[in-house]
Amino acid sequence: MNILIVYAHHEPSSFVAAMKNTAIEILSREGHSVVVSDLYGQGFSAVAQKWDFVTTSGNHFNYMFEQKHAAKLDLAFSPDILSEIQKLQTADLVLFVSPIWWFSVPAILKGWFDRVLAMGVAWDGGKIYEKGLLRGKQAMLIVAGGGPTEYYQESGRHKATAVQILHPINHGTLAFCGFDVHDPFVALNVLGLSDQGRLKLLTDLQYRLQHMLDSPNWLIRY
Amino acid sequence: MNILIVYAHHEPSSFVAAMKNTAIEILSREGHSVVVSDLYGQGFSAVAQKWDFVTTSGNHFNYMFEQKHAAKLDLAFSPDILSEIQKLQTADLVLFVSPIWWFSVPAILKGWFDRVLAMGVAWDGGKIYEKGLLRGKQAMLIVAGGGPTEYYQESGRHKATAVQILHPINHGTLAFCGFDVHDPFVALNVLGLSDQGRLKLLTDLQYRLQHMLDSPNWLIRY
Repeated sequence: MNILIVYAHHEPSSFVAAMKNTAIEILSREGHSVVVSDLYGQGFSAVAQKWDFVTTSGNHFNYMFEQKHAAKLDLAFSPDILSEIQKLQTADLVLFVSPIWWFSVPAILKGWFDRVLAMGVAWDGGKIYEKGLLRGKQAMLIVAGGGPTEYYQESGRHKATAVQILHPINHGTLAFCGFDVHDPFVALNVLGLSDQGRLKLLTDLQYRLQHMLDSPNWLIRY
Repeated sequence: MNILIVYAHHEPSSFVAAMKNTAIEILSREGHSVVVSDLYGQGFSAVAQKWDFVTTSGNHFNYMFEQKHAAKLDLAFSPDILSEIQKLQTADLVLFVSPIWWFSVPAILKGWFDRVLAMGVAWDGGKIYEKGLLRGKQAMLIVAGGGPTEYYQESGRHKATAVQILHPINHGTLAFCGFDVHDPFVALNVLGLSDQGRLKLLTDLQYRLQHMLDSPNWLIRY
């Protein structure tokens, strides 16, 4: 299976980096082809701009419609976007490995969603959710948050579970494009744990990665 | 009242720009002092980086703890972050004017949250929500989305209302820092409306802006 890991952390000695390294190691050992988009390492630009397109339609500038225009012109996107689109199109499974910042992903990964999941490439008019252009592919979030686990409940301080907090990504972004979305792997309280506690989380992740592909039980059902 | 408008759109002839211009005009006419952070216009950097700090603590690099370190050193942040923090500290009300992209804000505004709402400035250990460091200030999202209104229901295609979709920002970001958060102004189906329909939305926004400050009815209660 072709697996793309989109990784969004700046610090190689972070827990998020350890999760990414665990994923590369386990999935490569299982015989998969693993490609990594290291967004910080690549200096990926987060901000959607007019120069994201080789040429523009000449109409009122609407980023989404320019994406569709570029998609029609044999993917006339800037090289950094084109490269990510090609990795995405080759992938059977995309793993997003990221910290949780402000109940979401860091801007560098949000920018990947904004720029790479383009209209005409990942979705189109009338082609969303079960008709999304990326249907047949699988996706999964692997994320870590620093706060206490008990905050992440509807009756907790965050007034939402981790799954509710990630709805804009799992449903509104990934399922929207047609991905089959796996239940996220969410490591919480990472700052509060001992080294042993963090190692336990990496072992749990290893187990999930080894078994997620032969079990449909972890898919989110909408 | 000192009002900061944080504006996140690249196209001056967009509907989002029209909402921003409406806000500037109405609030200035009412006698408020209005300052605008035009994130695209400023070329605001979205990506949290090691060079966001004048000096670093020398410990394992954790962005959040470096924020706290910089905050203690009389706000030893990079000039672009410092400038935004100073505008934020002066403001009584912050309006975020933005499109909805992927059930959230564009990466350039997410990056503003990541970099400006710093630990030690906007919140701290034990100083979140009702004890957040920005308590006493008000905030409100003014956002526009392109999709049909009926999608934004728990039983609709998006499986969530607009308010649920914005929970990571209204609650997890703004309320987390101590802001009193106003019910968002959400303009939906902007692409599907006639010019008259869009003008009606701007009139609705004008009314909200004229009356929001003397009515507590629009505050979100948690």
